[in-house]
Amino acid sequence: MIVVLTGGTGGAKFVQGLAAVVPARELAVIVNTGDDLLWWGLHVSPDLDSITYALAGMLSRERGWGIEGDTFYCLDAMRRMGEPAWFQIGDRDLATHLRRTELLFEGGMLSEVTKEIACALGVNVRILPMSNDRVETRVLTPDGELSFQEYFVRERYQVVARGVRFDGAERARPAPGVLEAIEQAEAVVIAPSNPITSIGSILAVPGIREGLRQTAAPVVAISPIIGGAAVSGPAGELMQTQGLPVSIAGEARCYGDFLDLLIADQRDSAFGPRVEDIAVCYTSTLMKSEGDKTALAQSVLGFLRERSIEAAAS
Amino acid sequence: MIVVLTGGTGGAKFVQGLAAVVPARELAVIVNTGDDLLWWGLHVSPDLDSITYALAGMLSRERGWGIEGDTFYCLDAMRRMGEPAWFQIGDRDLATHLRRTELLFEGGMLSEVTKEIACALGVNVRILPMSNDRVETRVLTPDGELSFQEYFVRERYQVVARGVRFDGAERARPAPGVLEAIEQAEAVVIAPSNPITSIGSILAVPGIREGLRQTAAPVVAISPIIGGAAVSGPAGELMQTQGLPVSIAGEARCYGDFLDLLIADQRDSAFGPRVEDIAVCYTSTLMKSEGDKTALAQSVLGFLRERSIEAAAS
Repeated sequence: MIVVLTGGTGGAKFVQGLAAVVPARELAVIVNTGDDLLWWGLHVSPDLDSITYALAGMLSRERGWGIEGDTFYCLDAMRRMGEPAWFQIGDRDLATHLRRTELLFEGGMLSEVTKEIACALGVNVRILPMSNDRVETRVLTPDGELSFQEYFVRERYQVVARGVRFDGAERARPAPGVLEAIEQAEAVVIAPSNPITSIGSILAVPGIREGLRQTAAPVVAISPIIGGAAVSGPAGELMQTQGLPVSIAGEARCYGDFLDLLIADQRDSAFGPRVEDIAVCYTSTLMKSEGDKTALAQSVLGFLRERSIEAAAS
Repeated sequence: MIVVLTGGTGGAKFVQGLAAVVPARELAVIVNTGDDLLWWGLHVSPDLDSITYALAGMLSRERGWGIEGDTFYCLDAMRRMGEPAWFQIGDRDLATHLRRTELLFEGGMLSEVTKEIACALGVNVRILPMSNDRVETRVLTPDGELSFQEYFVRERYQVVARGVRFDGAERARPAPGVLEAIEQAEAVVIAPSNPITSIGSILAVPGIREGLRQTAAPVVAISPIIGGAAVSGPAGELMQTQGLPVSIAGEARCYGDFLDLLIADQRDSAFGPRVEDIAVCYTSTLMKSEGDKTALAQSVLGFLRERSIEAAAS
């Protein structure tokens, strides 16, 4: 079984590529829920939805979030009523949040609800929220804390970030199946997601980082940083708040205590075969087309095969 | 002040007509909430919404419920997820239910929430739910009880109805302002709504029927029955379950203990000037066009003026 740790955007593209080349039953995805928010009274899980929609073939290619071809008439009506409308929810997308909120209200665990929604959308890959407990990514700014969505969507990450904390993380437990998946994995892949707010939040849940250190499976990460900048989003800004260089070296440092292999873009190959004492392989990591996604997945599988052959030979 | 007691469909048309000829501050509307339902986890108040939308000029003319020109993409997505979709909520309409549910969840009373939504939609007429407490209209059928929406929408009132009860009514209190409005009214008008499930539920709230009996204001009702049949909906079937004739005589009997004047359609004028010992005036009550709505409102105001002249002369 291949286990992927992921956020939304870039991670969703990678998971989609991987699902095209690996059978659904051999794949499990552990997803960031630190970006979850209560919006219009609904429990919205942006990264869980992006992964589910990507695997259902429903994810909007143009936007990278929400449902392909969705409309925004409810949002328009909310705006007309004077309600906040900076976080955009499409009309079809609303069905998912309504269903999730209803099931949670009835006492369901987020992991169970996620499974039910995935099934309803015809997705057979195991999608696991990192935790059923509330963990809230908070971005520290000179004017106080913002939720991740306030920072990312409302402010378009144009305010100065001084740090990040994961509210509730110390009391959170990994969702059922998360530690088992990491322990029993043939390989663990960290998707090309923001190492601070997408993967960092997952690692903040007690037990997950230890699980990655202890698993017998190789742990590989795909860098979302190419040529000294994030492919998209505020990963660069947020890495700087942690005193990390915005480069594959910074990426390697985030995961140094458990990473076996960093997969970086070929444009960064000048870094050479080892960075921060981590082995690095180079390939094309930018996913523009459907072909790019499966090609990257194939590359990752190829690197994993090479590693297992090397491991067997040594 | 003119106080109207009303349900949705026919009542909404009448209220719209009345609001066109009476200043908003001189109008208060007491609305049935016995049809309210929890749908997709949302608190839906069909009659409150029909009245609010009618007064905001947003009510769909074609459907008689929901918002003019609304789309149903969220409903489609729900159906695709295997969720029940027989109760149709439009995408723009959803905003109202989301907002109501959120405000109620935060501890707001239905009457406060109704006011806030009306304000947000630019409606200045006072819209009062009959009660802030749960009253649920239940239709008794040979196969057990149905909620009103299950009977009306899902079964399209094609199942046999044996009776109606208003669950929770005995413990319900009129919403703040309801009894005061009836007491202080210059006139009370019962809209052409289903006397059993739209007006009957309002009258089932302890105190309201007594208020109507005691008010100094004339109480007039517009019959939704024309020529021995309801203009729309299951009023006829439900009147029969109470042993009432489906006629203006049955209508008069529903309100006999407090009614001063019944306004019936001219097609029923053969009933003559008194029915079941209630005075009857005849006019055109069918509201097909916008003009019909204001014409009926003008007729009702005319009858009220005549009555007050007669009362002053006697």
